[in-house]
Amino acid sequence: MSEPKRFSGILSPVVTPFGADLRPDAARLARQCHWLLSQNCGLAVFGTNSEANSLCIEEKIELLDALVEAGVDPARMMPGTGACALPDTVRLTAHAVKRGCAGTLMLPPFYYKGVSDEGLFRAYAEVIERVGDARLRIYLYHIPPIAQVPITLDLIERLIASYPDTVVGIKDSSGDWSNTEAMLNRFPGFTVFAGSESFLLRNMRGGGAGCISATANINPAAIHGLYAEWQSPQAEALQADLDALRGVLQKFPMIPALKATVAHYSGDDGWHRLRPPLVELSEDQRQELLAALSERNFTMAGLPELAGA
Amino acid sequence: MSEPKRFSGILSPVVTPFGADLRPDAARLARQCHWLLSQNCGLAVFGTNSEANSLCIEEKIELLDALVEAGVDPARMMPGTGACALPDTVRLTAHAVKRGCAGTLMLPPFYYKGVSDEGLFRAYAEVIERVGDARLRIYLYHIPPIAQVPITLDLIERLIASYPDTVVGIKDSSGDWSNTEAMLNRFPGFTVFAGSESFLLRNMRGGGAGCISATANINPAAIHGLYAEWQSPQAEALQADLDALRGVLQKFPMIPALKATVAHYSGDDGWHRLRPPLVELSEDQRQELLAALSERNFTMAGLPELAGA
Repeated sequence: MSEPKRFSGILSPVVTPFGADLRPDAARLARQCHWLLSQNCGLAVFGTNSEANSLCIEEKIELLDALVEAGVDPARMMPGTGACALPDTVRLTAHAVKRGCAGTLMLPPFYYKGVSDEGLFRAYAEVIERVGDARLRIYLYHIPPIAQVPITLDLIERLIASYPDTVVGIKDSSGDWSNTEAMLNRFPGFTVFAGSESFLLRNMRGGGAGCISATANINPAAIHGLYAEWQSPQAEALQADLDALRGVLQKFPMIPALKATVAHYSGDDGWHRLRPPLVELSEDQRQELLAALSERNFTMAGLPELAGA
Repeated sequence: MSEPKRFSGILSPVVTPFGADLRPDAARLARQCHWLLSQNCGLAVFGTNSEANSLCIEEKIELLDALVEAGVDPARMMPGTGACALPDTVRLTAHAVKRGCAGTLMLPPFYYKGVSDEGLFRAYAEVIERVGDARLRIYLYHIPPIAQVPITLDLIERLIASYPDTVVGIKDSSGDWSNTEAMLNRFPGFTVFAGSESFLLRNMRGGGAGCISATANINPAAIHGLYAEWQSPQAEALQADLDALRGVLQKFPMIPALKATVAHYSGDDGWHRLRPPLVELSEDQRQELLAALSERNFTMAGLPELAGA
């Protein structure tokens, strides 16, 4: 049995394409994943930006199977597997391990608010015990602006103490650098991903592993560029460039903006679709976004050829 | 095909019992439902207080089937069927209609925050179209403190206009009386339930239908008493009594407090169990709660006999 390697570098919460019937489109998703891998970008499929919580467990299992069958390397996949209900999290996580995924990104159960660390500890512990597979590697997913259920430092400490070989890392999407810094300082050896490339340079300087970021869907090579050269003299300039592009995207709702960008640069209109409760950009927003990208001479190298394949 | 009757009166979001393996216990739940019905209390199974979002869809379908097979009248059931993912909501809702449930209580998709009314309208509309059954009756579930995704008055108006025979009511768990009042005033004929008996008298006076309340799990007869006598001279005194008992419960986390109460008065310790991320009361909390209930001469008439059956 091979030991899963720790993730590092850049991962994208891959946006999920839907057909006209709002079903996920596995073939389009596989093409996108291959392109991202070609850009040195790992695959945090089923993340927040993947509309993963708008997919049911069966859909995620089918997509995961389709990706592996399409030749997408599971060693580069960190699927999101955390759901509200324990059996759902167990089922999807066990399937991801079985398919060889080198890790899973795990939300806490997120319906009930104001829950205790004891309750969240039990939730993660039950998943680990029930999956019962030594290959399981969990990256905790701290995203309080959306999940509204935080993963505290004390909870992380307790999970690492109880499951040191399983609970190996975290994605910090708090947007609060002081929280990421506290994790880096308090848990040496823990694999800490920033939740956005805005914090990539600081995270690397602090001993972090990289970032898992929405905009890696459209700008993976440049983000990886900073990851590769964070110790070089031009690192600050690279960070500033990334921040500027992210600034363009952040003027719009992020997920529809990512999909509009992929749709435009791939010439594939199907990418516009979102599942309710999310909605596509208005035509005005889309034009404004594309104009701003064009003004920056933005490109997605290699994408149109692959999408047209 | 019989037309489902509108709900009115008191409903309980029935607490869900779990076995030692944390699986839902259908037999215990059926006994509890029979007891609640004997107290003039309808069954909002799979509500927030039922830990419904800690159950997967398959578990809810199995429980619903087991309840109907145990003779629980589906005309008195308003199961919660709203999930994050469209296919889950469609599947459970269609099953509830098929089993004869006279209505469903439907959360909006609740993972993504800050979503638009347009997105939420599409989410409900897709469910209605996909279920495609004239018997479907939806009671919207507005619970911003937990779901963090509100159902605005404008959204309600649009849903009623598009689906007048389907979107027939709401449970308002905002805790904000002015919001309930605005619904009563703006939507005559809409079936408005207060989300707590604290607002029962005001809701009845304003033209509301009753309440769907956590504490109806343990105090259904008294809450129904106020519903039946809201126009009598003693209505204010009955409301004050209900408020006092609710005040006792609200000193503790509500769901574990309800379960501790049912466990004690049924003599059935199994009721203490909760699924993570929720946890049971501490022994100190439990003693404090039971002492406060005992001081008020609180009882749950008929419960021990039924539970021991």
